[in-house]
Amino acid sequence: MMDAQVSFLDQLFAKGVLHDSGVDGLYARSGEFEDVIARFEKFALTYGQDEISEAMVFPPGMTMQDFETSGYMKNFPQLAGTVHAFCGNDHDHMGLLQCMAAGDDWSKDQKPTQVALTPAACYPLYPILSRRGALPAEGAYVALQSYCFRHEPSKDPARMQMFRQREYVRVGSAEQTMDFRETWKQRGSDMMERLQLPHNVDVANDPFFGRAGKIMASGQREQELKFEMLVPITSEEKPTACMSFNYHMDNFGKAWNIRQADGTPAHTACVGFGLERLALALFRHHGFDTSKWPEGVRATLWG
Amino acid sequence: MMDAQVSFLDQLFAKGVLHDSGVDGLYARSGEFEDVIARFEKFALTYGQDEISEAMVFPPGMTMQDFETSGYMKNFPQLAGTVHAFCGNDHDHMGLLQCMAAGDDWSKDQKPTQVALTPAACYPLYPILSRRGALPAEGAYVALQSYCFRHEPSKDPARMQMFRQREYVRVGSAEQTMDFRETWKQRGSDMMERLQLPHNVDVANDPFFGRAGKIMASGQREQELKFEMLVPITSEEKPTACMSFNYHMDNFGKAWNIRQADGTPAHTACVGFGLERLALALFRHHGFDTSKWPEGVRATLWG
Repeated sequence: MMDAQVSFLDQLFAKGVLHDSGVDGLYARSGEFEDVIARFEKFALTYGQDEISEAMVFPPGMTMQDFETSGYMKNFPQLAGTVHAFCGNDHDHMGLLQCMAAGDDWSKDQKPTQVALTPAACYPLYPILSRRGALPAEGAYVALQSYCFRHEPSKDPARMQMFRQREYVRVGSAEQTMDFRETWKQRGSDMMERLQLPHNVDVANDPFFGRAGKIMASGQREQELKFEMLVPITSEEKPTACMSFNYHMDNFGKAWNIRQADGTPAHTACVGFGLERLALALFRHHGFDTSKWPEGVRATLWG
Repeated sequence: MMDAQVSFLDQLFAKGVLHDSGVDGLYARSGEFEDVIARFEKFALTYGQDEISEAMVFPPGMTMQDFETSGYMKNFPQLAGTVHAFCGNDHDHMGLLQCMAAGDDWSKDQKPTQVALTPAACYPLYPILSRRGALPAEGAYVALQSYCFRHEPSKDPARMQMFRQREYVRVGSAEQTMDFRETWKQRGSDMMERLQLPHNVDVANDPFFGRAGKIMASGQREQELKFEMLVPITSEEKPTACMSFNYHMDNFGKAWNIRQADGTPAHTACVGFGLERLALALFRHHGFDTSKWPEGVRATLWG
């Protein structure tokens, strides 16, 4: 599997679809790669357009306080990134430059800021909803997009450290959120058909950390809280999750104090599209020249 | 001035153009705000389209090594952000969770990663060009975009911590790069006319750090290395730089070993558009309802 990953990554570099930076998982994107992502986003937004109550786009960071509330450091500490900065005076700056000149590690003296990199696109939404008070009876249905960071350097081009997720998030009753997730599992398969990508939906778990994490992961699977849309990119045996369909029960409603109209904690569900992964799947299956992609795929994306 | 900044920011929140996060300079963007940015980018790309040799989009981070090469920590240490992560085992994780539960500062134990947040959109380009060997005679002309980070929390909505720059970068001879900058100063004014924004171009300097920085700043002004397109947003007296026109001489060519066809260090110049600032200027001068913007502005952006 490793070889197929390296080989696909090398091809992406050779064709100029991505540009190497020297750090695994950190790549410049070509104009053509970005065009495919923009077209996929437009295509995704044709589904359920009249259901969306609001659209938002987030910057790549969220507040440290909201990041702490999310519980991410409990479950996935190994993947998170926090932002640190120099907070010294002229004298400290001289020391810093001497440290750099000597080739020593200067970054250990950086101080924490109030910013953490966003690990999942929907996290910054919940505190915003929380501040608005109880939801209306119809709940909320938000279309959003964000860059996300995960500290997992890899030669697999489908596992970047910085990547974008487009998401739909449903917030409301248990019934509203579970209906939403079922609808999107079907829409996701329809989208994959139209993009002519091999796919299947399967139950899944998040990469919970450590020994306790094994129990969390199996609980998540047993309760079928997470499904993934799997597409082979660098491996047939271990296909890549290009979409995920998640039901959080009322965990986020409780963590952020988001209330339904009747005052009980809101349930939440989200469908996430891994934009770089979907673009990579398209390049992998339809070739490096987008003008030669199958007619049906071109009609879907170029309209 | 401060009052005008707070008042415009409050209006942006009240109208739902931006959403507060609780940290100054870190805001969610509405769908409408993003639409204005996307339309501005499309408009910007109608200028000089046949001159562009390549398009790229960067993720919000760059490699620590390239960040060090850029010299940013020498000149602007106070603005930079580095990314840090948890690198411990199960035992360390228990300590981390105890620290968080006690309300202590857990982020000081985060370890540096190989990623720094990109401070200026063109920085990740130079190492890519460097690896390609000497430039062709016509040089390079790259259209690019990136999220940038600057650690300067502010109530001025036009001074965000995370924001996007669209740039054109010219790499080649002194003549090619200076011609490019002159052309773009004129194009910038033409763009502002068509967007019906009050504007003027003035010589400027970057916010160099500390005592030595004052000398750097006045040298930059004397040599006229930086011009800015100023538009009043929250203040008439201190208008906001919405575009900048920069000539780096051969500083980056030397730092990154980018060579002209004849083997001498390449000169570089860039024109940068502050995308959030331009959108804010449009909302400030034409109102919060984009459907009521002046006909000429709508024709320019909505075509």
